[in-house]
Amino acid sequence: MRVQVAIIGAGPSGLLLGAKLHQAGIDAIVIEQRSADYVLGRIRAGVLEQGCVDMMDSLGLGARMHAEGLVHGGFNLGYRNTHHRIDLHALTGNNVMVYGQTEVTRDLMDARAAWGAKTVYEAENVRIHGFDGNTPSVTYTKDGKTHEVQCDYIAGCDGFHGVSRASVPAQSIQHYERVYPFGWLGVLADVPPVAHELIYSNHERGFALCSMRSKTRSRYYIQCSLDDKVEQWSDQAFWDELRKRLDPEAAASMVTGPSIEKSIAPLRSFVAEPMRFGRLFLVGDAAHIVPPTGAKGLNLAASDVHYLAHGLIEHYQEKSVAGLDAYSGRALRRVWKAVRFSWWFTALMHKFPAAAGDTGAISQKIQEAEIDYLLGSQAAMTSLAENYVGLPYEV
Amino acid sequence: MRVQVAIIGAGPSGLLLGAKLHQAGIDAIVIEQRSADYVLGRIRAGVLEQGCVDMMDSLGLGARMHAEGLVHGGFNLGYRNTHHRIDLHALTGNNVMVYGQTEVTRDLMDARAAWGAKTVYEAENVRIHGFDGNTPSVTYTKDGKTHEVQCDYIAGCDGFHGVSRASVPAQSIQHYERVYPFGWLGVLADVPPVAHELIYSNHERGFALCSMRSKTRSRYYIQCSLDDKVEQWSDQAFWDELRKRLDPEAAASMVTGPSIEKSIAPLRSFVAEPMRFGRLFLVGDAAHIVPPTGAKGLNLAASDVHYLAHGLIEHYQEKSVAGLDAYSGRALRRVWKAVRFSWWFTALMHKFPAAAGDTGAISQKIQEAEIDYLLGSQAAMTSLAENYVGLPYEV
Repeated sequence: MRVQVAIIGAGPSGLLLGAKLHQAGIDAIVIEQRSADYVLGRIRAGVLEQGCVDMMDSLGLGARMHAEGLVHGGFNLGYRNTHHRIDLHALTGNNVMVYGQTEVTRDLMDARAAWGAKTVYEAENVRIHGFDGNTPSVTYTKDGKTHEVQCDYIAGCDGFHGVSRASVPAQSIQHYERVYPFGWLGVLADVPPVAHELIYSNHERGFALCSMRSKTRSRYYIQCSLDDKVEQWSDQAFWDELRKRLDPEAAASMVTGPSIEKSIAPLRSFVAEPMRFGRLFLVGDAAHIVPPTGAKGLNLAASDVHYLAHGLIEHYQEKSVAGLDAYSGRALRRVWKAVRFSWWFTALMHKFPAAAGDTGAISQKIQEAEIDYLLGSQAAMTSLAENYVGLPYEV
Repeated sequence: MRVQVAIIGAGPSGLLLGAKLHQAGIDAIVIEQRSADYVLGRIRAGVLEQGCVDMMDSLGLGARMHAEGLVHGGFNLGYRNTHHRIDLHALTGNNVMVYGQTEVTRDLMDARAAWGAKTVYEAENVRIHGFDGNTPSVTYTKDGKTHEVQCDYIAGCDGFHGVSRASVPAQSIQHYERVYPFGWLGVLADVPPVAHELIYSNHERGFALCSMRSKTRSRYYIQCSLDDKVEQWSDQAFWDELRKRLDPEAAASMVTGPSIEKSIAPLRSFVAEPMRFGRLFLVGDAAHIVPPTGAKGLNLAASDVHYLAHGLIEHYQEKSVAGLDAYSGRALRRVWKAVRFSWWFTALMHKFPAAAGDTGAISQKIQEAEIDYLLGSQAAMTSLAENYVGLPYEV
């Protein structure tokens, strides 16, 4: 088979890129090693920036998102037995949309099916070839047969553990990584949310986040030790600990129920540079990971897709490679700013062990001073808010 | 001798407090272990916040400052071969005043002499007593004789190494400290400044600061190793290194000359809590030290004096101890915000060794992303500017 663009991975990055290229009449295929149900079963973030919402709308796929998603004009910062609202809309003119990544994925999958766009699930042994030359290709095995897809370009949308980044020679790629000294224990439950907007709580027992997927489904997290095992956390223990980390008003509104999903995730900041290697482009988690504080993962995938789709469409429509040549630089500029913000917001909200060489808990005191300053400064709150709703795209 | 308030130390904190109390008719003495010339010989910061300028004016001591000081409505942030102006006045409505700490000190000393206010220089063996009870006192030796000053209150304005904080029982005080992994090599020279406003330069070879005391006297600093000895740095070597850390336009404007003073200072963040112990109040450097990036040291001394003078005047005029009881909390709230800002601005501008556990120079990349974000965000620049010109006093 021959296509113009082979997209590896049917997560949000791959499906968003596939939709953008389909809309532009560019012939692309999405190749995914898992089943569609497996992809849909992954529980991920659920806060969309305006840029991501606009992208869904521009694809004509925003109807269910607008019907079922929750528009949030603010969020709450819990601190010292109360919570303070950060009025995103007043500070920036923008909102965010609470709509689960699973729902975005489902809408994109449904659209692909309706369009009859080329999509292969459960592709085994996916391999990419020749991206350093002019004749790249992708091979995979399906139902015992080996298939080859020849293409002009490969988009590596296959996540942190995918084959795309792993196929780049080590000397051509630079890795940057920070691993945080704690994890997040997350619970999904069919209970109404504590508050109608998110609560990010800085508490002496550790960070907690009250998030939601809908008005009847809550997503809660608490900072936990990296040594913790999910089996050690009964539902009751989770609810008890969460309650302790909320202010009295929020705690009183907490409704408990059986967990649908419970897991522990480590937190890391990771960036691979560059994001282009000849005819291979890395997109989303394949190139970068941020800690979930601030919900930037899916939104960065969307901005990568925006820049790459721009470059590919320009190439096929105007025979210019300017947008493709600019892709890595443009994408990384926004990625690094989001890495910076996600690190900062993580550092602001979590309990950290004392830094080597410090006397007393000075970093803890500086963190408290920063929250104290933030909550009293319109400028600092605006800076937080403009990052939270998403910095503008460059083109 | 009996006074209402005994002030230990004739640096800016002690002299400012002495002037405020003199103005309010409160009987105070300033006791300093060094000579006046020694105190005036110390080379320190020279950027005054509006609150400090206002304090000098309210004392009727602003005339020479306004005649000789330089009003700066902005400063420059050097980065990647150019510099960007941070327009403090446009962003905040405020300016800063470049006027050396030595000059502030001289004006305050001259005023004290003119008022005939009690001042003892070259007091040896200064000791403070009984501040945990109702009859505190200060003893010192001068010209071979021991003197005792009985008082209502003691103001410890004697700096980081002074006797005041050292006299507090260890179990009553909490210390917080961070030592930075580099120092500042500073040079004072009678050459015109590189630019008429300050340049803070983030450079791959390390931080540099182009500051000044007047239109004909420059104060320059470069980040250096803590292992460096000042003897290793010839004037020529200093100028050569400074030039390399400036953008071409700034470097071309650099005029070199013999150094008047050359020294290496370590950078630390330090806070002692609380700032009140019975009838002893700590003020300025006696209670806290910030790295010089952002020039907050003298300005924090001024805000401490503002709060303590407010409390003492309220006490003597209205027989209320509310202001004295609030002193430590009010002062520390502003201190910690300035500690936070000074740490942040230091972290933004210097080269740091890679943090343990990081892969690649991720903290360096995050620093670059922060500058990139800052220079493109009105909100972030406003936050920087409002801290730089000084956060408002609480009362």
